[in-house]
Amino acid sequence: MLVIGENINASNKSVAEAIASKDVASLQNMARTQAEAGADFIDVNSGSGAGEQGIMTMEWLMDLVQEATDKPLVIDSDSPEVIKAALGKYRGEKLMINSVTAEPDRLSSIGALAAERKASLVALAMGEGGIPNNVDDRLAACDIIIKHLTGLGMKEEQIYFDPLVLPIAVDANQGLVTLKTIEKIKLHYPGARTVMGLSNISFGLPKRNMVNRGFMLMSIYAGLDAAILNPMDAKMMGIIKVADMLVGKDPSCRGYIRAHRKGLLAD
Amino acid sequence: MLVIGENINASNKSVAEAIASKDVASLQNMARTQAEAGADFIDVNSGSGAGEQGIMTMEWLMDLVQEATDKPLVIDSDSPEVIKAALGKYRGEKLMINSVTAEPDRLSSIGALAAERKASLVALAMGEGGIPNNVDDRLAACDIIIKHLTGLGMKEEQIYFDPLVLPIAVDANQGLVTLKTIEKIKLHYPGARTVMGLSNISFGLPKRNMVNRGFMLMSIYAGLDAAILNPMDAKMMGIIKVADMLVGKDPSCRGYIRAHRKGLLAD
Repeated sequence: MLVIGENINASNKSVAEAIASKDVASLQNMARTQAEAGADFIDVNSGSGAGEQGIMTMEWLMDLVQEATDKPLVIDSDSPEVIKAALGKYRGEKLMINSVTAEPDRLSSIGALAAERKASLVALAMGEGGIPNNVDDRLAACDIIIKHLTGLGMKEEQIYFDPLVLPIAVDANQGLVTLKTIEKIKLHYPGARTVMGLSNISFGLPKRNMVNRGFMLMSIYAGLDAAILNPMDAKMMGIIKVADMLVGKDPSCRGYIRAHRKGLLAD
Repeated sequence: MLVIGENINASNKSVAEAIASKDVASLQNMARTQAEAGADFIDVNSGSGAGEQGIMTMEWLMDLVQEATDKPLVIDSDSPEVIKAALGKYRGEKLMINSVTAEPDRLSSIGALAAERKASLVALAMGEGGIPNNVDDRLAACDIIIKHLTGLGMKEEQIYFDPLVLPIAVDANQGLVTLKTIEKIKLHYPGARTVMGLSNISFGLPKRNMVNRGFMLMSIYAGLDAAILNPMDAKMMGIIKVADMLVGKDPSCRGYIRAHRKGLLAD
């Protein structure tokens, strides 16, 4: 499975502070350590909103992250202008943009940027009304999205659908809603990929990491292709090795055994 | 999920020795501790083969286990005579017999005993040729079994199909073969249950318990209803709480939170 390192995100207070105080060393260290821990992509979210200041902050962050690592980046912003500016700074080839929904405005503007740059694009299975609490409405959003994006010339393979996750403490059915959404996305759009940040499942519960790891195992069996997570979470990274092996994606168990020899399978 | 405590099984050398030396205290302790650890059923396998001696040993074991616990028992033997003798000793109401395959002789003899006693019956998804390496052949065995057993008057609900598990270190596809067999059993025979002992999945690998727990999470999502395992494995018992919650079988997360408060969620 593809791991997207989530740590450089200004919605995290310490990251927002590092950005505000121009703490280059600390931000570059976050990029490097995530890459070393096995992240395949590094998410970059400057959280600074749009406008001149937001664009400058994102450009500055893109530059310093690319000095620290050659890993492909995920350009993460709500603002088409900020994404466009980040694209101008990006020197890599593989690339992901995060994110669109079925809302027409962002779908058009951000979709056009992704299509032009041949980037992968994270697409949340929701429209204007917020996160639907059922599978059918999430799929209806996916349907709007995929029609629009393929109409712009994007391939199914470029689209990473996020099935979305609501807390199981609020509604016991939400684990299955997300898992069945993943299954149906893979069934209806065989070329499309799936991605999610799954920690929302355990919101409000004790021992959240244990619940998150359990949900990761089920999600990978359901068809999850990529996850946005903290790659410094050694137990989660070990569980991903186990899961990939159990679903037949690790021939002769080589990846699992290599991880064991490197001491990476935290029990 | 239903937990069947596997510990009183003479294929385990120390249990065979306890039986040979008539160590009643140690065997009764195994029954009690499994019940206290949360087993819903206690498997009883005297491993003594058929014949006069085999029957006497099983009768002796049935008596001493029932002195130690009121939990329902699983009568576990290859021999119809031994099962019949154990049934004669059994005072409980809920009851499981372990096991039949699609082989006609045992299917007829043990099936008739289960039907007469209205017992649940573990049925291995295999015939005379050993464990099939693919889903279709395992389902073909299930088909023979369910036709025969319902012909004897058993209900689908009494049948616990074991999808069987081959080591993933030998064939990377075997995790999926077992998981898809579970899914198809639940699809084709909606009333039937599924059960397995899953530790075979990790045979030959390091960190086997980690692999077994991962496979348990996927299996419960695929539709596993019961597992034969060591209930003293606290991490496995915690994972089952997590899995049941994630598939919507723990409304308001009550079971999970109660387990946390009792310190039963080993991380």
